[in-house]
Amino acid sequence: MPHLTIEYTDNVQGIGTVSALRTLNEALMASGQFREADIKSRAVPIGTFAVGTQTAGRGFVHARLAILDGRAPEIKKALSEALLEALRCICRSDCPGIQLCAEVSDIDRASYSKTIHEPGTPST
Amino acid sequence: MPHLTIEYTDNVQGIGTVSALRTLNEALMASGQFREADIKSRAVPIGTFAVGTQTAGRGFVHARLAILDGRAPEIKKALSEALLEALRCICRSDCPGIQLCAEVSDIDRASYSKTIHEPGTPST
Amino acid sequence: MPHLTIEYTDNVQGIGTVSALRTLNEALMASGQFREADIKSRAVPIGTFAVGTQTAGRGFVHARLAILDGRAPEIKKALSEALLEALRCICRSDCPGIQLCAEVSDIDRASYSKTIHEPGTPST
Repeated sequence: MPHLTIEYTDNVQGIGTVSALRTLNEALMASGQFREADIKSRAVPIGTFAVGTQTAGRGFVHARLAILDGRAPEIKKALSEALLEALRCICRSDCPGIQLCAEVSDIDRASYSKTIHEPGTPST
Repeated sequence: MPHLTIEYTDNVQGIGTVSALRTLNEALMASGQFREADIKSRAVPIGTFAVGTQTAGRGFVHARLAILDGRAPEIKKALSEALLEALRCICRSDCPGIQLCAEVSDIDRASYSKTIHEPGTPST
Repeated sequence: MPHLTIEYTDNVQGIGTVSALRTLNEALMASGQFREADIKSRAVPIGTFAVGTQTAGRGFVHARLAILDGRAPEIKKALSEALLEALRCICRSDCPGIQLCAEVSDIDRASYSKTIHEPGTPST
């Protein structure tokens, strides 16, 4: 926790890199809500997509931040806006209709489990 | 909003195309719930999968529709059924045990953010 | 239902196989909560990722189990822990900072739809 997933259609540049993810992670760090090493982000390219029913040039970048439940609505809104602002700076496209969006979802805290894997051979 | 994600195992044909996604988007449009340009759909092929613990020929197509919260249960059910019906028409497979499923999930409206990206060089 | 999604960064071995997924499915079967053929699992490799803002060797494996709503918190916690224990046995990595995590999320039961696809040509 938190888990950040960035989906981006293949007509958007600048977002599918480790560097871009680190910039997003820095934006999350700046919120003061998370420990540095806990922020786990991935970029997922979307090759097959459709926006609406027209064939016009369109695309999207969608950020989904999943955090343990219990945070206040205003904190979630601030996290979402910080991600969107970072995406505005990172993303490049010649396509006129690229939608950028950010959502924040809750992870059920009571059933969340986590551990650090020890290197080497598994015990079984 | 809405976001539609179609996962399909690689023993199912007909679904991993822009054309198939547009057909699904048309089904969503027909519901009267969404603006045309807001419907953002992607198809995600699943190469490594397991259904249960048997090695028998199986597979699945899973539609996940994420919409802003606040819609009535009967509307969600109708959206789910419309997607499933469209999938029944679109998908082809020689495998006897393909499961088709559709779920509708809520996006937290209060923290959802969205903008349209302006083409060209980012400002920073 | 249930749907299990395993994301793994590409510095983790042992998890991106049908055999590994079957082992996880067996752990879910052992809970007594699910019918064998209903357990649908996929492994998704993550090529572009960042953990925090450091460049140190890190990575993660994230299990997300989505089940129909209504199960008790202690059942969800047990499912999460069973998945984490199975991941500990399955995953291998030379990287010292691999985080393993498991979450359980609810699927809205009222709007979930499912059918079995009939082989052959679709009716339309």
